[in-house]
Amino acid sequence: MPSLIAIDGLPLIEPGMCLGDLLADAFDWQDGDIVVIAQKIVSKAEGRWVRLDDVDPSPRAAELARITDKDPRMVELVLRESREVLRARPGVLIVEDVRGFICANAGIDRSNVQQDGAGERVLLLPENPDRSADEIRRQIEARTGRHVAVIVNDSHGRAFREGTVGVAIGVSGLPALWDRRGELDLTGYTLHATVIGWADEVAAAASLLMGPAAEGVPAVAVRGLARPPGEGKARDLLRPRERDLFR
Amino acid sequence: MPSLIAIDGLPLIEPGMCLGDLLADAFDWQDGDIVVIAQKIVSKAEGRWVRLDDVDPSPRAAELARITDKDPRMVELVLRESREVLRARPGVLIVEDVRGFICANAGIDRSNVQQDGAGERVLLLPENPDRSADEIRRQIEARTGRHVAVIVNDSHGRAFREGTVGVAIGVSGLPALWDRRGELDLTGYTLHATVIGWADEVAAAASLLMGPAAEGVPAVAVRGLARPPGEGKARDLLRPRERDLFR
Repeated sequence: MPSLIAIDGLPLIEPGMCLGDLLADAFDWQDGDIVVIAQKIVSKAEGRWVRLDDVDPSPRAAELARITDKDPRMVELVLRESREVLRARPGVLIVEDVRGFICANAGIDRSNVQQDGAGERVLLLPENPDRSADEIRRQIEARTGRHVAVIVNDSHGRAFREGTVGVAIGVSGLPALWDRRGELDLTGYTLHATVIGWADEVAAAASLLMGPAAEGVPAVAVRGLARPPGEGKARDLLRPRERDLFR
Repeated sequence: MPSLIAIDGLPLIEPGMCLGDLLADAFDWQDGDIVVIAQKIVSKAEGRWVRLDDVDPSPRAAELARITDKDPRMVELVLRESREVLRARPGVLIVEDVRGFICANAGIDRSNVQQDGAGERVLLLPENPDRSADEIRRQIEARTGRHVAVIVNDSHGRAFREGTVGVAIGVSGLPALWDRRGELDLTGYTLHATVIGWADEVAAAASLLMGPAAEGVPAVAVRGLARPPGEGKARDLLRPRERDLFR
């Protein structure tokens, strides 16, 4: 019977902390557990803070800031973190980010803003969340001797549907997609178009416990879940534009 | 600690069976449980079978069948179940269905095809899945005396990302969206754009146990999950076209 278990004993994460070691010590991990980690603490451990005062907006950022009614320094950071701007309207800036994610503000959320003595700073996504997941997995496995899998998740808006949902932006030790084409269903009919966004479903499940607000559950253990064979990466979940029939 | 529990003692569902009573008797329900039910068995209980031999394709269906390389009778059913065709290419027919869902083949999946003595039949989505969820909830509550919530889920493809994920197409007794705007995050910063597709995250979590193939888990109990206040419907999750910034 699969369970979702909040990992809530972590300290506030600062740059340079070893997140894998902290996670290893925060829970009695068992073989087969999946560790789902909120992007925010991965970014913090990796020191992905940027001071807005240090950002010099380009003319294009200034123009997009006018259109979107956003801070030009924030827009400049979004542009640096993006391959392409998909939508710019008042209050809205949706991009394809450098990692290939379609998301608002290249994942730089205003809720990540923090004040300190030296002015406002914001938090970028991990540079390579699949690599982050690999590193954290290795750290947990080295310290505990248990075989675990790791998902880094974030909340993304969606086409067609209201509300954000948790998605996998980093994956290590489990498949991102479960390709069931060729298997038979209960009626003996071959499933011919069934590829499941499995890591995204796990990410969404964990997201139910995390919440974006003051509860502060930055990691969730998923225990007892039957797992598809193979291993993949979160980038497997990115649909190439030429194959994106919904775009 | 939230748990996901497979409800696997149901008989094969035939038209006219009382799904609520069957679910009520299949598990020891407790107050606060969420019952997630696969669309397929809801459709079966509601007798949403159509014999392909009884379907007379219109000229438009015949034309779209040529373009998509699909059975003209299937395409005719898709058109009857749709408001608008969004994409028609070889092997692909994506529509906005009469309920407002953006999905392939109006939810009429080829894996729903069954053979019987009288020829092939396919299974349409429930006419009104929110209403189906309400009815099943009332039946379970009447028979068990427990307060439960119900989600009818289905697997949908997505823009931008590979793989299908479970989504809520019917909701009763819980909110579909969790509007957290105005709450404070850990840093005291007001969350200003956070509306969570909560019922979709629950639907995705349950989908991890269901699988589309031979395992045949048609319903899942979600127990112990802290629930947002209020009640909503799956139609709350449909983003009006004029507000759909990703479309």
